[in-house]
Amino acid sequence: MKPRVTLITLGMPDLDAARRFYVEGLGWEAVVDLASVVFIQVGHGLLLALFGADDLAADIGDGAPRGGPGAFTLAHNVGSEEEVDEVVGRFAAAGGKMLKPAQRAEWGGYHAYLADPAGFVWEIAYAPGWSVDSEGRVSMGSG
Amino acid sequence: MKPRVTLITLGMPDLDAARRFYVEGLGWEAVVDLASVVFIQVGHGLLLALFGADDLAADIGDGAPRGGPGAFTLAHNVGSEEEVDEVVGRFAAAGGKMLKPAQRAEWGGYHAYLADPAGFVWEIAYAPGWSVDSEGRVSMGSG
Repeated sequence: MKPRVTLITLGMPDLDAARRFYVEGLGWEAVVDLASVVFIQVGHGLLLALFGADDLAADIGDGAPRGGPGAFTLAHNVGSEEEVDEVVGRFAAAGGKMLKPAQRAEWGGYHAYLADPAGFVWEIAYAPGWSVDSEGRVSMGSG
Repeated sequence: MKPRVTLITLGMPDLDAARRFYVEGLGWEAVVDLASVVFIQVGHGLLLALFGADDLAADIGDGAPRGGPGAFTLAHNVGSEEEVDEVVGRFAAAGGKMLKPAQRAEWGGYHAYLADPAGFVWEIAYAPGWSVDSEGRVSMGSG
């Protein structure tokens, strides 16, 4: 087994609100947009699915409550501090809630945290040492 | 802005338990393993970070409680039903909790759900129509 994530599914209490934020607000084109689920390509071989929270709970099917957003974040890395500011502005304009304004991070980069309308947390980051080689391998450098 | 996820960070109440599950149990090699965070490459240009839940909350810094696992899943797609069974066995042997035993899915594939020791939910799936072209674009086919 190779370490691999192929799909990230977010359970949305309001799928229409999620569609407005991600597709209309951020301009992230859906590769498949059905009544019950929206798929967006967010990386090489990687999809993000916006799915109804009730549908996701039913699909898992163990009956355990999982509340809304959990203790996790999705990061969107960009190439410069200026680009962080631009993307943060775009997230905010689309209806994202600012949790931590863009600022220097102790690990040497520059980042901000915003929440989508459902509360899922995105980190918008510029990490100077972050690079991806032709095989897709990430190096974080010395930060 | 291109739709992009570069890093998935899971806030772990017990980072040692998470390390035992992912690195020792599943055999997912860490590309960086520090006292406070473990990074694992899980895709082309994509890292998974295991981070302390308190550290993650402090980094976001808005003071809002986010509980543990939320309404989301990470999927690990493999190439056949047999491979689903193998990976499910590996997850279970590593200490994963079975939430939904491997079974046919209504969308035409074969899948299971398991939780890691912190409760984060993984879907192990074989999707017959899933393919990735040389540019990394995912096609889900007709299922």
